[in-house]
Amino acid sequence: MNVGNQHYRSIWFDEQSSQVKIIDQRWLPHQFLVVDLDNLDAFVAAIGDMWVRGAPLIGATAAYGIYVQMIDNPSNKSLEQTCDLLLATRPTAVNLRWALGEMRTLLTPLPDHERAKAALARARQICEQDVECNRMIGVHGVELIKKIAATKSHGEAVNILTHCNAGWLATVDWGTATSPLYHAVQQNIDVHVYVDETRPRNQGAHLTAWELAQQDISHQLIVDNAGGHLMQHGAIDLVITGTDRTTGSGDVCNKIGTYLKALAAHDNNIPFYVALPSTTIDWTLSDGIAQIPIEERDPLEVTKVWRKLNDGEVAQVQICPDNTPVANPAFDVTPARLVTGLITERGVCDASTQGLAQLFPECAKD
Amino acid sequence: MNVGNQHYRSIWFDEQSSQVKIIDQRWLPHQFLVVDLDNLDAFVAAIGDMWVRGAPLIGATAAYGIYVQMIDNPSNKSLEQTCDLLLATRPTAVNLRWALGEMRTLLTPLPDHERAKAALARARQICEQDVECNRMIGVHGVELIKKIAATKSHGEAVNILTHCNAGWLATVDWGTATSPLYHAVQQNIDVHVYVDETRPRNQGAHLTAWELAQQDISHQLIVDNAGGHLMQHGAIDLVITGTDRTTGSGDVCNKIGTYLKALAAHDNNIPFYVALPSTTIDWTLSDGIAQIPIEERDPLEVTKVWRKLNDGEVAQVQICPDNTPVANPAFDVTPARLVTGLITERGVCDASTQGLAQLFPECAKD
Repeated sequence: MNVGNQHYRSIWFDEQSSQVKIIDQRWLPHQFLVVDLDNLDAFVAAIGDMWVRGAPLIGATAAYGIYVQMIDNPSNKSLEQTCDLLLATRPTAVNLRWALGEMRTLLTPLPDHERAKAALARARQICEQDVECNRMIGVHGVELIKKIAATKSHGEAVNILTHCNAGWLATVDWGTATSPLYHAVQQNIDVHVYVDETRPRNQGAHLTAWELAQQDISHQLIVDNAGGHLMQHGAIDLVITGTDRTTGSGDVCNKIGTYLKALAAHDNNIPFYVALPSTTIDWTLSDGIAQIPIEERDPLEVTKVWRKLNDGEVAQVQICPDNTPVANPAFDVTPARLVTGLITERGVCDASTQGLAQLFPECAKD
Repeated sequence: MNVGNQHYRSIWFDEQSSQVKIIDQRWLPHQFLVVDLDNLDAFVAAIGDMWVRGAPLIGATAAYGIYVQMIDNPSNKSLEQTCDLLLATRPTAVNLRWALGEMRTLLTPLPDHERAKAALARARQICEQDVECNRMIGVHGVELIKKIAATKSHGEAVNILTHCNAGWLATVDWGTATSPLYHAVQQNIDVHVYVDETRPRNQGAHLTAWELAQQDISHQLIVDNAGGHLMQHGAIDLVITGTDRTTGSGDVCNKIGTYLKALAAHDNNIPFYVALPSTTIDWTLSDGIAQIPIEERDPLEVTKVWRKLNDGEVAQVQICPDNTPVANPAFDVTPARLVTGLITERGVCDASTQGLAQLFPECAKD
């Protein structure tokens, strides 16, 4: 999508310099910084220290990491060690494991001198597949927005709430939850987006608000507490979020706080949709609350945050008494009963075993 | 309650110096600062610029403000002007209007030379009444905690979630939602408190976490997004919040985000109680969502906040892109159907017209 008036992806291979480039997302929204990743250490840092984040983008970055290492040392031992090293950067990320598996399977049978070239081609293909998948989520999701727009008066926007960043910065392009928004704008449908700031890491305030501003899409930042009140007063027509992992039965694991918005949407008869590439569906699970382990993250995420000071400097600041004890679960599970539907690259379906089986018969359990 | 090992109230008349003293709450939790309010300008600033906050404390502070001005100039004109000036500091606060009305009614018939002394006596009485009211909320509320404690194994704490600061810093002492907690601890009942940080102003992180730490009460700070997940996993036994205004039918207006916690409590069969002095009940209202206007506050509350930097300095920092548009509703309304009960100074009742009428027959509408 656009930054200023220029089109960017979150990761790309620069033909002129033959370098892999990313947006170093740690400094957003305060600084827009493009960096080269030209050795394995840089890739390990980029994933592990969250210069890039978002499951699809992490997978794509890891694939490029293999490519860069295959230029330096394409031996079997190097390939194995690189896969292990990259996998260890974010051990719970499903797409990371998948992308590394793809690369290993492709490269292992090849002679050493062919590996770098093949790795580059596959990394680029992984990116293209991600872009196409997210584009199709938008193609299907925009129909939901269109239906609501048809009920509005001229000039009245469709009001959409989103949580966290399921935007293009979490993928290679388009994003998941944001793809329907971008498609709506391209089709001249008025939308207004309420952006949950999404504590503790503030991905909504740092990334989603920034993305939408770059794209000139009408939006307002709100605290995570505000969505229920807005729904009670008719200010929201539709909720669309992303997901980190969805069960075969339609339970949705996503950034902490998603469940609270789903409850409020349900209480106010507002449709609550989840946008996802089918790669994030875990077909082996049927009870999200019981079966999905929730990562407990560093208390410093809650007590200290990176912020821009009045003098423009970016610094780490503390928001509570010294030594305050903290609980910091990173995700929650929204039960399928609260999810109106799932927006996938193949279409929209019910959040249920039956709904998913209709779109993905080859994956559904018997 | 205690700060360190010393007992404090949030406002007091110091006999030795004959001065009115308050805790300047703007600097908490990073600095504990006691200041004298020795002229009317200081009182106006203290209320208007939120050195003190919380409806009961604002009322008490205004009463002392009248006293201090009556020393300087006890004329009728001075009394009227002072009431007007203080009322304008926080025009929507019900207790402010009430306290000023009390002072005016008391002082107007008195000769000028008796006014200061009478004002001091009434201001002190208003404080004592507030303390006693909050103490009784604790006496009644602790019974709910006791019942849950009786179902626990030895050494297992009763887990209580609270939102915002309905603590002693919002009142003269005890607090409303916190009074039952303090009573529980005094009765050797193990409690553990989950403290919502309460964006945008972070009163949970700044004030409630600080209060509980000073009192050595087990607690953990959580982001506002986390409560639903904790409830799904049995980590919370009871929710107690305060309220700014409750309708005669039991709808509860409180800090933004309270409604989301009530929904989650309801979805997980967890009791959700609201602690309140009966002075915050608006007997004229029967539909909180339709009838209570919700204040839209300064966007800067969302985009910029006061935080402690790594070097110990406290500064204002920005958490989103420059010029991000913001919506900032300050309160929401939790419908009575989601409220298990109301804890008042007269006892605990259903959140309903009937429930309130049983405890307050003289106030209930026919």
